Amino acid sequence: MRIIIIGAGNLATRLSQALQKVGHEIMQLYSRTQTSAKALADILHVPYTINISEIGQNADIYIYAVNDDALESLIELPLSPNAIHVHTAGSVSIDIFKGKKKNYGSFYPFQTFSKAKEVDFNDIPICIEASNKQVSLKLFELAKSICNNVYEINSEQRLNLHLAGVFANNFVNHLYQISSDIVESANLPFEIIKPLIIETAEKIQQLSPNEAQTGPAKRNNQTIINKHRDALKHNNELLELYNRLSNMILNANVSQ
Amino acid sequence: MRIIIIGAGNLATRLSQALQKVGHEIMQLYSRTQTSAKALADILHVPYTINISEIGQNADIYIYAVNDDALESLIELPLSPNAIHVHTAGSVSIDIFKGKKKNYGSFYPFQTFSKAKEVDFNDIPICIEASNKQVSLKLFELAKSICNNVYEINSEQRLNLHLAGVFANNFVNHLYQISSDIVESANLPFEIIKPLIIETAEKIQQLSPNEAQTGPAKRNNQTIINKHRDALKHNNELLELYNRLSNMILNANVSQ
Repeated sequence: MRIIIIGAGNLATRLSQALQKVGHEIMQLYSRTQTSAKALADILHVPYTINISEIGQNADIYIYAVNDDALESLIELPLSPNAIHVHTAGSVSIDIFKGKKKNYGSFYPFQTFSKAKEVDFNDIPICIEASNKQVSLKLFELAKSICNNVYEINSEQRLNLHLAGVFANNFVNHLYQISSDIVESANLPFEIIKPLIIETAEKIQQLSPNEAQTGPAKRNNQTIINKHRDALKHNNELLELYNRLSNMILNANVSQ
Repeated sequence: MRIIIIGAGNLATRLSQALQKVGHEIMQLYSRTQTSAKALADILHVPYTINISEIGQNADIYIYAVNDDALESLIELPLSPNAIHVHTAGSVSIDIFKGKKKNYGSFYPFQTFSKAKEVDFNDIPICIEASNKQVSLKLFELAKSICNNVYEINSEQRLNLHLAGVFANNFVNHLYQISSDIVESANLPFEIIKPLIIETAEKIQQLSPNEAQTGPAKRNNQTIINKHRDALKHNNELLELYNRLSNMILNANVSQ
């Protein structure tokens, strides 16, 4: 397909590379930021623009891989009315395009992307949603060309999936931060926790979270829990988080 | 070394296998539970007993890989006074042996162990602590024989490390559980989150938790945060956890 990419952030960068690699034509890319636009254009060897009036009219599909605020204004642009217009936002309904585009939808790779680390698109679930059956078929074909796991979901499911991702990624990463702070204040290096972090994530590929749950709260070992509380007594915020999560694990146990 | 293993749980199983594999002699193992004792004895092809009075007297080292309550009574046994006695407990000081044994310490592999999944001991940090220099040298040698990362730490550091592990493993796993509950209530399979979970853990092997932090709270995107809060409005416990963790990420951001 002939694709124009709107955006040059982490997702736009990784997605456009994956699409180009399997033979799609990235015709052009737009970003309001010159340096980001040029950096991605150099990787892809395609033209770029930072001027909205110069965005091409002849693509089959426009992928809006931008933040939610930018999305709202960019979909107002009078781009090719027959093309498909999709956003990549977890928490935005496809109704945002209603009345503005004829063929639209969402193309949502469910993964965390960073400039520093490449990811294999084959392993990434892509969630699609379309305004009509023709668009659905096209998006399915596009998604299948770069990945094995394609899910057709609606906007409410996508919002919930995004929320689940906040727990499994953003909040988990914050727990890594807390863990790192604790070992460093005990004069130990963060390195020492890394094997546990990897194993915890790998375990869940084979076991359910319920089967994988271990620890003093799971065993209701109050002696250890009290030692931990004592170690946190000077940090009320962490102590409260410790209590809350321990109680949630304890209660999940009881209700089984 | 000639080793007697006290306990036949996940840690005892994995540790004794690793030690035997590199040439140490597992002389005997004890567990109060016949089935566990026999299962591990069958794997190792060594004698076992479920009778405390039959535990051998001629080992170089006794490894007490049991829960904290069992540990307290088992260290009272009149086993070889010249041998080294170590426990594997994260939250128990080595002072528990004081006045009861001459040579003692702790041998603490910092990892989560399960019967279902084998782990490579080479990658696991082992933390040792000893009552005297001779014991320290022996424990260092023993740890080095099965792993690359050996840390000599004191009991307070070990307690903090254990606490950090509760955040990075037990609590992280509970967030996986929440995440799983959210996608399943949206009629999506848990499978869809697994690639994100792995990538989140792998990212942290290269980036610091601070560099790896992303998400609506990090960007202070109140529009998305409010959509998520709305999706959680019928589950007060999750809503409060969402608010608490989001605020912690927001505040960490502000204070930088």
